[in-house]
Amino acid sequence: MADNQELKDSLSENLQQVIALLDKHRLVETIVHNQNMPKHELVESLVHKQNLQELQRKLDVLHPADVAYILEALPLEQRLDVWELVKAERDGEILLEVSDAVRQTLIADMDSDELLAAAEQLDTDELADLAPDLPKDVFQDLLDSLDAQNRARLQSALSYSEDAVGAIMDFDIVTIREDISLEVALRYMRRLGSLPDHTDKLFVVDRHDILRGVLPLKRLVVSDLDADVADVMSEDAVVFHPEDIADDAAKAFERYDLVTAPVVDENNKLVGRVTVDAVMDLIREEAESDMLSMAGLREEEDFFASVWKSVQNRWAWLAINLVTALVASRVIGLFEGSIEKIVALAALMPIVAGIGGNSGNQTTTMIVRGLALGQVSTHNMQSLVTKELGVSLLNGLLWGGVLGFISYVLYGSYQLGLVMMAAMTLNLLLAAFMGVMIPLVMNKVGRDPAVGSSVLITAMTDSGGFFIFLGLATIFLI
Amino acid sequence: MADNQELKDSLSENLQQVIALLDKHRLVETIVHNQNMPKHELVESLVHKQNLQELQRKLDVLHPADVAYILEALPLEQRLDVWELVKAERDGEILLEVSDAVRQTLIADMDSDELLAAAEQLDTDELADLAPDLPKDVFQDLLDSLDAQNRARLQSALSYSEDAVGAIMDFDIVTIREDISLEVALRYMRRLGSLPDHTDKLFVVDRHDILRGVLPLKRLVVSDLDADVADVMSEDAVVFHPEDIADDAAKAFERYDLVTAPVVDENNKLVGRVTVDAVMDLIREEAESDMLSMAGLREEEDFFASVWKSVQNRWAWLAINLVTALVASRVIGLFEGSIEKIVALAALMPIVAGIGGNSGNQTTTMIVRGLALGQVSTHNMQSLVTKELGVSLLNGLLWGGVLGFISYVLYGSYQLGLVMMAAMTLNLLLAAFMGVMIPLVMNKVGRDPAVGSSVLITAMTDSGGFFIFLGLATIFLI
Repeated sequence: MADNQELKDSLSENLQQVIALLDKHRLVETIVHNQNMPKHELVESLVHKQNLQELQRKLDVLHPADVAYILEALPLEQRLDVWELVKAERDGEILLEVSDAVRQTLIADMDSDELLAAAEQLDTDELADLAPDLPKDVFQDLLDSLDAQNRARLQSALSYSEDAVGAIMDFDIVTIREDISLEVALRYMRRLGSLPDHTDKLFVVDRHDILRGVLPLKRLVVSDLDADVADVMSEDAVVFHPEDIADDAAKAFERYDLVTAPVVDENNKLVGRVTVDAVMDLIREEAESDMLSMAGLREEEDFFASVWKSVQNRWAWLAINLVTALVASRVIGLFEGSIEKIVALAALMPIVAGIGGNSGNQTTTMIVRGLALGQVSTHNMQSLVTKELGVSLLNGLLWGGVLGFISYVLYGSYQLGLVMMAAMTLNLLLAAFMGVMIPLVMNKVGRDPAVGSSVLITAMTDSGGFFIFLGLATIFLI
Repeated sequence: MADNQELKDSLSENLQQVIALLDKHRLVETIVHNQNMPKHELVESLVHKQNLQELQRKLDVLHPADVAYILEALPLEQRLDVWELVKAERDGEILLEVSDAVRQTLIADMDSDELLAAAEQLDTDELADLAPDLPKDVFQDLLDSLDAQNRARLQSALSYSEDAVGAIMDFDIVTIREDISLEVALRYMRRLGSLPDHTDKLFVVDRHDILRGVLPLKRLVVSDLDADVADVMSEDAVVFHPEDIADDAAKAFERYDLVTAPVVDENNKLVGRVTVDAVMDLIREEAESDMLSMAGLREEEDFFASVWKSVQNRWAWLAINLVTALVASRVIGLFEGSIEKIVALAALMPIVAGIGGNSGNQTTTMIVRGLALGQVSTHNMQSLVTKELGVSLLNGLLWGGVLGFISYVLYGSYQLGLVMMAAMTLNLLLAAFMGVMIPLVMNKVGRDPAVGSSVLITAMTDSGGFFIFLGLATIFLI
């Protein structure tokens, strides 16, 4: 039994061992290189070889996902050293397991023949995942090497958008006819000799591949052998179409606790299946990409990417924030006269803006989540706005009151304290209103509210906060 | 076949229909109430009844998960109207499907007998999910109503921490002995008549319930019937312990594409199993709780929670941010003399602080993700810091240069432009260093880096940015 704790220990242990072996290997190389001692070369290259063999043996016994883990955790140079040692016939599987960013670094290190050899070990649906990263000529060679059915499958898998069911389905389907008995079905299974991973049900089709139902394996093994497939199969299985949105399919998997589900075309003809492992990868990826995009990282970044690549990944976000910061700065510029007269305003204004941003982001996060779950829409928008305004009013009076009092203590002006409290309250109300409206509008116009909402809300509460606070101060204090 | 698109359409359609029926129901109630016309009462109560019956019929055919969806999307009063109509024998299943916040509102509406009746329909592992929300006396009654085995199971399930495997495992295990033939095994299955959900493998145990291996159903159906279970079973299955961290188990499910896995105690005795649907729920919940906690929402919030409840959920975060904003404000206060002389400083300083915060959050997000994947640790910390400092230096010179130029154009002072550029660069370097260090240190001292890192980094870059910019300005411009 492979114990989970052992698995986890060995994950980081594997990594440490690989690093130790690589370090030894480097050391030997450095000695050979620096000392230039021909008579020692033989010995050293022997040590060297033993070292590499040990490393290779280590890698050979690891699961592809575990090799991928090691590759991702190594800086580029060491990563490529390890990659060289991985048996060629495992390249394909491992390329599927690593992140996009790391995959690119590995592919860049392989020549066309190696890539083609790696690709040829994969199933069509796996090829579809890999294809976008392959050089054009390799992809063309690959297409030529496939038989007609698999070529058509690959091309159709690639034709679906990345977020469609077609992009996550595979073709490992086992079909049977409905008019046979379970005994015959079982004999057919035994003739097949093995079933694809995750097979929890057989797909029941007619002679034209039209889906008639599904036969769960667990029904097959508990039912009377004389019964016909048609009697035992389930006819109300959840099915998907290739052009369905993959995220909706994922929700259906969660909602109805599915392990696999058939994918059919518009004529109800079986074209593939979706499995729970693809769905789990999707859920994980979406959660990660939400987190990354909320921080303005355009895509997953290889930890050991060059500085230049990282700058490219991050500049757009910084540029947008720079523009909104400049706008806020110009708002302050309008009131330079007031600040000159009461310099305390300069010290207090970032508080008003900052708390507004925090509160607005809380509201937006709630709404984005509600939109994702399908629980927020126009029918309850009004009650959400009312509630958020209520929360802000309470928070504004509470925290605005606290800050107003602190301002009074610091600067000895109760008018300044009152302005502070009023500005806090108004900016929190603005934050609440915008925090509900911005994601709803973005959703309405078909944009992902998770991506830009936080920049927009912060821009509003910064500029708005400065304007409200300095404006009130100019009216009442100057 | 239940088509996914239809499923999705019907989800929101269901909701709209329920709302329409509820509205009619309200209308009738209002008329009866306001007009006080005894002679009409009969008619109206008839209309009323028909209405409710239609609604009830609608609810009866829906999957528990779909009823849960409707309950979550309704404001409290309407939610309780619908809840009243749900058939009592489905209460338990539906309570399991709704979010914690909504579950509390539903439970608050039920009396002890209803709760006990709902709980009695559930499996032990499901009860363990529900138990923490039950009133104490109901829970005690429930414990008394269970047989010894189930009571022991429930108590042990409740004894594990919420993030342990023990908290997500269930007890729907089907076991067989290794010394029987597959033919006998199949006959035993047929005698059982049905297998628990998600059964993709049988657990092979000896007479003392010690786990010997697992027999995947798909091997059972393809193998020769004369073979013994021992010959066909797999001995290197991934197993978990109840006290393992659930998130590690989830990673193992993803890594090794599992559907179910056995859970054993320290003596390798089988105590339960983990299924992929529990794992998927866990992944989704963790992603959501990360998002919520990054915005300082302590827990999932019912959309229709009272204003007061929402204030309680959010105040801690606002209070922390208030303190950090106050600190930043005091830093500005140090330089009031300089701002009085050059008021442009007040308008420019938020830009330096803001961009530092954005850049620092990008770095922190990367590191938090790397820590979660186990790819970041002390062995590569140095190269990460070096890389991030490089990125910041480039960005600082680039965007600092742009902003320095804009400042020069706006205020006509090239010295101010140079101070701006230098301050931007230094604050971005501070952000990069802190962005790597803060999550690593938090992780080292055993805190969740996803929760507090973003507040800390923003506090540093705000106070740091103001200090660097105003400090440089005071030295070089005044």
